[in-house]
Amino acid sequence: MRVLILGGDGYLGWPTAMNLTARGHWVAVADNYLRRRLCREENVEPLFGVPNLHERCALWESVSEKQIPVFIGDLTDWEFAAEVFRVSKPDAIVHYAEQPAAPYSMLNRRAAALTLNNNLTVTANVIFAVREYCPDAHIVKLGTMGEYGTPDIDIEEGWLEVDHKGRRHKFLYPRQASSLYHTTKIMDTDLLWFYVRMWNLRVTDLMQGPVYGLFTAENENDDRLLPFFNYDEIFGTVLNRFVVQAVAGYPLTVFGKGGQTRGYINIKDSLNCVRLSLENPAQTGELRIFNQFTETFSVNELAERVTHAGNELGLNVKIQHVENPRKEAEDHYYNPKHTGLLDLGLTPHCLDDKTLEQMMRFVMRYKDRITQDQFYRQVKWA
Amino acid sequence: MRVLILGGDGYLGWPTAMNLTARGHWVAVADNYLRRRLCREENVEPLFGVPNLHERCALWESVSEKQIPVFIGDLTDWEFAAEVFRVSKPDAIVHYAEQPAAPYSMLNRRAAALTLNNNLTVTANVIFAVREYCPDAHIVKLGTMGEYGTPDIDIEEGWLEVDHKGRRHKFLYPRQASSLYHTTKIMDTDLLWFYVRMWNLRVTDLMQGPVYGLFTAENENDDRLLPFFNYDEIFGTVLNRFVVQAVAGYPLTVFGKGGQTRGYINIKDSLNCVRLSLENPAQTGELRIFNQFTETFSVNELAERVTHAGNELGLNVKIQHVENPRKEAEDHYYNPKHTGLLDLGLTPHCLDDKTLEQMMRFVMRYKDRITQDQFYRQVKWA
Repeated sequence: MRVLILGGDGYLGWPTAMNLTARGHWVAVADNYLRRRLCREENVEPLFGVPNLHERCALWESVSEKQIPVFIGDLTDWEFAAEVFRVSKPDAIVHYAEQPAAPYSMLNRRAAALTLNNNLTVTANVIFAVREYCPDAHIVKLGTMGEYGTPDIDIEEGWLEVDHKGRRHKFLYPRQASSLYHTTKIMDTDLLWFYVRMWNLRVTDLMQGPVYGLFTAENENDDRLLPFFNYDEIFGTVLNRFVVQAVAGYPLTVFGKGGQTRGYINIKDSLNCVRLSLENPAQTGELRIFNQFTETFSVNELAERVTHAGNELGLNVKIQHVENPRKEAEDHYYNPKHTGLLDLGLTPHCLDDKTLEQMMRFVMRYKDRITQDQFYRQVKWA
Repeated sequence: MRVLILGGDGYLGWPTAMNLTARGHWVAVADNYLRRRLCREENVEPLFGVPNLHERCALWESVSEKQIPVFIGDLTDWEFAAEVFRVSKPDAIVHYAEQPAAPYSMLNRRAAALTLNNNLTVTANVIFAVREYCPDAHIVKLGTMGEYGTPDIDIEEGWLEVDHKGRRHKFLYPRQASSLYHTTKIMDTDLLWFYVRMWNLRVTDLMQGPVYGLFTAENENDDRLLPFFNYDEIFGTVLNRFVVQAVAGYPLTVFGKGGQTRGYINIKDSLNCVRLSLENPAQTGELRIFNQFTETFSVNELAERVTHAGNELGLNVKIQHVENPRKEAEDHYYNPKHTGLLDLGLTPHCLDDKTLEQMMRFVMRYKDRITQDQFYRQVKWA
């Protein structure tokens, strides 16, 4: 299968590119290094440097003999987007090409405007380019569990049958997000759903929970092939940040009460979910939605897991409840379904001490590179 | 009250400006003439020319002694938007400043991109400008009944209590629109709702049905003060188009079966709804939603009304069912609630022969200006 990965330099984009080529798929990647630029501007550099995308592809080719064509440019620019699609002729697109951080989207007006414009314009260009160059191609879009927010009823997998005054209608599950970034993902889904109905696109929207980890089958023996590893408040996901805080001897920063519960997923499983979605595509005219996570934890539970694993390694891990800079429910009902990807064959890697210890041992090698002021920037929601 | 009208040159913007000043409110208007430019580019000029916005305000001042400051510029440009808010210091904003036509949004990629970018960016700039310059100001936003689409259950007024597996949650009513334009209005609502929750904005979102008519208390004695009157397939609303077709001796173009049912509203009532919303503002931290229409009709029913009124005037009105260029349900359940504005005191002007005859007699004066190729451009949805 010919797969075009948009955002192929990212935390998930690059591991996905290697994973798919290792499984025999042809892959091309496009990226404009937006994530790298924003991390530099906000002074929240990842834990270790990584090669640029051309270098990464050359390294991967030297290891695997798999060639990955690289397109560097901005997918909000229609001319560039059209060229990428015209040349790569994909059977499927993995669309990661978005500003991915909730706190960044809440930083200030310019960051909000960038997030809104970048995410919506790229999604629109993907839709238009598929229509023009590959109308039968399957779009696999990274959404987020954050689209659903934390409603008081069970979260179904994308759709909800509503009974109302003796009648019934099936809707997209009503969504209400807790950051501008997550709100742009709601808008993406609305846009995709509209054009699925109008143009019979085939789309899989993956409502993913926070991802953790950095090791995959393709990079375990070669550090040069690792993904970005952000541990800061802005671009770092919570479990990755806790692991680095534990190693740094900095208390795990739990926002508010810590009862915020989310669905989490190991990066290995995230890649498998994307691959399973590609290899079992949505039908023509179908918007297929999967809830992409394997286990739910409250922030308090995550902090306890990290504390336990860290203490096993001889670290002296502390937890500190800090003022929550976000506006979110800190204690809420949360019961999201997630059977679709299991039905496709996903075998979850659950969070255990071994996984956490492997991450901690790795982070220890970069301990002197940890910048503690990244941990708690207090990007305020209100 | 100091009211800033964004899109103050439009079909509703200009009548609203006169109406509010006549009721003693201070008003400023902003516009970039986007609607005029797009009509010129697509060669669908309104039935008669209207003065520019500066000229309109000068005319209105000569009649009413009310001064209306004019800001000409593009509200997607933050510098301009900020200046307008900084100088006008509004207590309330009426936000009409969007690309308003469903068919235009489906015309081609550039028109779609313009619609998406214009509508979302202006709404975002309004939110940011309110936050920065007038955080307590009331935003009155024109939404559309089209956000709801045509679900098989009753359409409530903005919100829906969902019972699911023994639990209950109140959501924004789930929305699914039938054009890109209408989809951008869903996105607007999502954006406003997010920032209402984060920043305690006060917002009224008016889900308006198609508007018809052109006469208001302020313009009935002076044609120079009339609004745009588009009768084309792209920018003209259906009833206005039917009236012009009847006068032109061109068969009323009913798309497909004609069972498409919508909620309609006379322009007089539309202005009253906006004024009532302003004079009874939403609370701090409230997204208030009203369904803004007075009567529902199928397209067939509208065509029959126009035929009857036209024949009374001696016109020989015919109806022609043409291939539906849109992708939409042509026969569907439709039961939308609309009590909120009635509760605020709206007294509807219902559609009757007299209203239609007044419109037809007026249009007859411009019969030689009617360009019949505007009636059926067949902008295809799929």
